[in-house]
Amino acid sequence: MEPDKYYIKEQLMSLQDEICSSLEALDGTGKFHEDKWERPGGGGGRTRIITGQHIEKGGVNFSAVEGNMPEKIYSKLGIGPNRFFATGVSIVLHPINPHTPIIHMNVRYFETDNGLWWFGGGIDLTPHYVDDVLATHFHESLKACCDNANESYYPEFKKWADDYFYVKHRKETRGIGGIFFDRLDKNKFSKQEGLDYILSVGRSFIPIYTHQFSKTAKLDYTDREKEWQLHRRGRYVEFNLVWDRGTKFGLDTDGNIESILMSLPPETKWTYRYPYNEKEQNTLDKLKKGIDWVNYKEV
Amino acid sequence: MEPDKYYIKEQLMSLQDEICSSLEALDGTGKFHEDKWERPGGGGGRTRIITGQHIEKGGVNFSAVEGNMPEKIYSKLGIGPNRFFATGVSIVLHPINPHTPIIHMNVRYFETDNGLWWFGGGIDLTPHYVDDVLATHFHESLKACCDNANESYYPEFKKWADDYFYVKHRKETRGIGGIFFDRLDKNKFSKQEGLDYILSVGRSFIPIYTHQFSKTAKLDYTDREKEWQLHRRGRYVEFNLVWDRGTKFGLDTDGNIESILMSLPPETKWTYRYPYNEKEQNTLDKLKKGIDWVNYKEV
Repeated sequence: MEPDKYYIKEQLMSLQDEICSSLEALDGTGKFHEDKWERPGGGGGRTRIITGQHIEKGGVNFSAVEGNMPEKIYSKLGIGPNRFFATGVSIVLHPINPHTPIIHMNVRYFETDNGLWWFGGGIDLTPHYVDDVLATHFHESLKACCDNANESYYPEFKKWADDYFYVKHRKETRGIGGIFFDRLDKNKFSKQEGLDYILSVGRSFIPIYTHQFSKTAKLDYTDREKEWQLHRRGRYVEFNLVWDRGTKFGLDTDGNIESILMSLPPETKWTYRYPYNEKEQNTLDKLKKGIDWVNYKEV
Repeated sequence: MEPDKYYIKEQLMSLQDEICSSLEALDGTGKFHEDKWERPGGGGGRTRIITGQHIEKGGVNFSAVEGNMPEKIYSKLGIGPNRFFATGVSIVLHPINPHTPIIHMNVRYFETDNGLWWFGGGIDLTPHYVDDVLATHFHESLKACCDNANESYYPEFKKWADDYFYVKHRKETRGIGGIFFDRLDKNKFSKQEGLDYILSVGRSFIPIYTHQFSKTAKLDYTDREKEWQLHRRGRYVEFNLVWDRGTKFGLDTDGNIESILMSLPPETKWTYRYPYNEKEQNTLDKLKKGIDWVNYKEV
């Protein structure tokens, strides 16, 4: 029997619990603060925020909402009036240490009561300074997770991430990409396979982040490096507010604002024509689409 | 004889010069740094940025650009292919002192070589703490400037500002509004009257800001007040990146990014569910549309 929405929802709630307890252990002192919220139209969520000794601001959100689909949306989808159901887990972590990357993960499931369903999600990394070895490790881990399901996934979803996480007006990728996928339906896999895949992506998050964290969180850093981090976070804000479709959808449709905007950094700077040093320029040179991080060799 | 585009451009360049020298005098130590830039399609600008002892980050930009109008735009306007010309002065000032408001001014002129022309612009104020007396003074000054041209302008353009400078997803106005107007053409006034009006708006900027500045720039402030300022600046970023049509147009059309985004604050914070104190809540209560600041009485 195929998994139903109740089962998928339970699985994602467990995923949120697992990730939160692992992140508390990793940080060492931070504890998640939970806000439960309800959506007037149906459903709700659990927003969980952490401030710790290493994580400056982190959010691990679960939601499961349902209701009548607005006409604007169902006509765009080429289907009739229906009730929809959407559930997902979303994570953004902003570390204190500028050597530790910002990480983002999302896995989600969507269905309508007239038979449509799909999965979406991904993990992407935004280092303030690109470390080639850590970048390769990140992409190797994602590739291993994807290959386990289907060897075509990593190349396809890696390209999708490069294209999606692009700060068009700066001509920079948001970070070193990762994987991104959306609306994968019965043409891609069975519902069981889809659920297995997003859960394996979700469960890869902690080992992946633990590796990045353990190599960087205790490194010394200078005032200049912190300053650069604050400016890179500005780009993160620019992407999320100008280009991210998920954020725009939430703002346009009167979503839970504080929960949607938990992705914004705790502190940010913008300086007119910030003067880059060589090390910073080296990172900018690597914020490009199409870099093969798995087989990366310094040119 | 009606003023032509060369004359209007000269007038706006003089306006920029006047405002810059007054702001340097007001700040006392800050000096504008100028970047001249050219637009590949035609025209260019003078971006001027100041960092001083009172102004944390300020930009006073002039531009005059021209070129072939993209098909997408002229078909929307219901006109044929043409060459356009657009010139304007744009200002955003972020003060160091949280008691001094953020101020924004813009005046602009647009024409096509097939006979269309219009003026636009406005001034609006974003206090971190709303001071009723200063808010009333600000609106009285704008009303006096408008009334001098036409008594219908202030009520019309005041409402336009309330509607335009609205952070929809927060259900807050960006600040206490001001005046905003766009595409005022031959149905509104002659070209000479239009130019006279935007120049009078432009020339009201310095006395208006000088009043706000002189009452606030030397006031003591606490760490908490600075903290609140950094969070209010976050709303300024949200408005500019999510809702401001001018910014979106610039980002979509590959404009001079550093010049467009000079409006972003030097430093900003976002905190999940920032806990307001009573004084902060008092400001939030006044970030509403439709407040009659000229005749304001505390309820």
